[in-house]
Amino acid sequence: MAGAVFEHEIRVTWGDCDPARIAYTGRLPMFALDAINAWWEHHLGDGWYQMEIDRNVGTPFVHMALDFRSPVTPRHRLICRVWPTRLGETSIGFRVEASQGGKPSFSGDFVCVFIVADQFRKSPPPKDIRALVEAHLRPVAAE
Amino acid sequence: MAGAVFEHEIRVTWGDCDPARIAYTGRLPMFALDAINAWWEHHLGDGWYQMEIDRNVGTPFVHMALDFRSPVTPRHRLICRVWPTRLGETSIGFRVEASQGGKPSFSGDFVCVFIVADQFRKSPPPKDIRALVEAHLRPVAAE
Amino acid sequence: MAGAVFEHEIRVTWGDCDPARIAYTGRLPMFALDAINAWWEHHLGDGWYQMEIDRNVGTPFVHMALDFRSPVTPRHRLICRVWPTRLGETSIGFRVEASQGGKPSFSGDFVCVFIVADQFRKSPPPKDIRALVEAHLRPVAAE
Amino acid sequence: MAGAVFEHEIRVTWGDCDPARIAYTGRLPMFALDAINAWWEHHLGDGWYQMEIDRNVGTPFVHMALDFRSPVTPRHRLICRVWPTRLGETSIGFRVEASQGGKPSFSGDFVCVFIVADQFRKSPPPKDIRALVEAHLRPVAAE
Repeated sequence: MAGAVFEHEIRVTWGDCDPARIAYTGRLPMFALDAINAWWEHHLGDGWYQMEIDRNVGTPFVHMALDFRSPVTPRHRLICRVWPTRLGETSIGFRVEASQGGKPSFSGDFVCVFIVADQFRKSPPPKDIRALVEAHLRPVAAE
Repeated sequence: MAGAVFEHEIRVTWGDCDPARIAYTGRLPMFALDAINAWWEHHLGDGWYQMEIDRNVGTPFVHMALDFRSPVTPRHRLICRVWPTRLGETSIGFRVEASQGGKPSFSGDFVCVFIVADQFRKSPPPKDIRALVEAHLRPVAAE
Repeated sequence: MAGAVFEHEIRVTWGDCDPARIAYTGRLPMFALDAINAWWEHHLGDGWYQMEIDRNVGTPFVHMALDFRSPVTPRHRLICRVWPTRLGETSIGFRVEASQGGKPSFSGDFVCVFIVADQFRKSPPPKDIRALVEAHLRPVAAE
Repeated sequence: MAGAVFEHEIRVTWGDCDPARIAYTGRLPMFALDAINAWWEHHLGDGWYQMEIDRNVGTPFVHMALDFRSPVTPRHRLICRVWPTRLGETSIGFRVEASQGGKPSFSGDFVCVFIVADQFRKSPPPKDIRALVEAHLRPVAAE
């Protein structure tokens, strides 16, 4: 198991918020996706854009489930802890735990499948990606 | 049980799509939320905006879970079938089933809580809203 | 000159609004783009997505200018009148005038260039597109 | 005149891009708004959210004009240089110049009016805000 869990910081703004003065629910899955993309970018050097175009590897989502604990606002940066929780033959699970000011905001579990991007066909990931993910696998409960 | 399930139609566009030429995953929960908001607008006369401002009733989300079956594109309108599946003392469950050209695209289960909007405090819904939801309750499997 | 100006209707929702309880400024150019895309879809049969993929024609924007007159809210549908104002050798101008409840909300002028999509190279539009646009040209002041 | 122009860095991602594999045009005004909000946050300590709620000061947009020079992609961070160009009795102008890898991406001019937020009524800005803006005014051509 690797060391510290990767953290991705998001600047929540006015434009993310709805008339209830909290981030719109529809923005929260997007924040989680940004955090997963940042995980790839940090660990692999490439985010989804480069994976698709330079490596011909896609990772479309087949499932997501989120629990919302407390409202997200622009008053603190949103800290998203992200890690891979499971690696199957052709699939990968991610956990995202988001907090503001030390208080849990929301958490989510995500499942993606690896595909050959230009064929949109399910396929095991390249070896370097498999090795990278294996080195960072953790169960859902990170601590 | 009420008659036909409510359907909300979404025009998927270029701007919803990512470089894989399909609607970006982060857009799909937003489409589902638009469909739930449209359910309220159609049945109650008011969407979330009017519920909050005119009725002081909020319905923040505490949970969502989605399964993605096939890619969403601009080639067909996205048809979202929406109905309430559960009504608790202070909570409500919604099911959204989205399809394009008759083919399932994604489905989702959502849980919201009723609140007094200006106090952000959990509270049973007003009687008219309770009656309205009860009249349209169906189990998750709609047919 | 063609008959009536094309109108595109937009359902403004809670999620489009910011804490000031009006549609977020950043959403308004998106509404205008949706209206221009709908103009193509209505007149050509294809929106930007099909133009790019099926016809290899792109129309990236090089300029936009918008004036905001009154706040946009979910209380009325947003009606966007759209028409082409100018057709150059390799460029096209569009006008969008948006209103709610009969009251002007915002207006904008947009300039796009025609490109061969897979080469991202400026090019005159295909003849059928040129003829179509010419048939609907109007000056900025539509009436 | 103050020293260096404020720079706001944006991480452009897969989800910002359209099927042409470049950031969707509709995202670019949003990036510019994020940069202006970051200017306030950096210089005043408060972004639009805190200005509205804590100071009862709003700055709705009345005009924007943007020129798009070269496509924005996730391959570089988007660097947005932002500064106030004009301060009227009740209005303020901003300039945003965005670049990637040292190459100009787009630029824009924006005009906002100061309002008493809870009355949505035009009003001169508070003195501390006027002084702050005056200290950072520059003409449109920043160098």
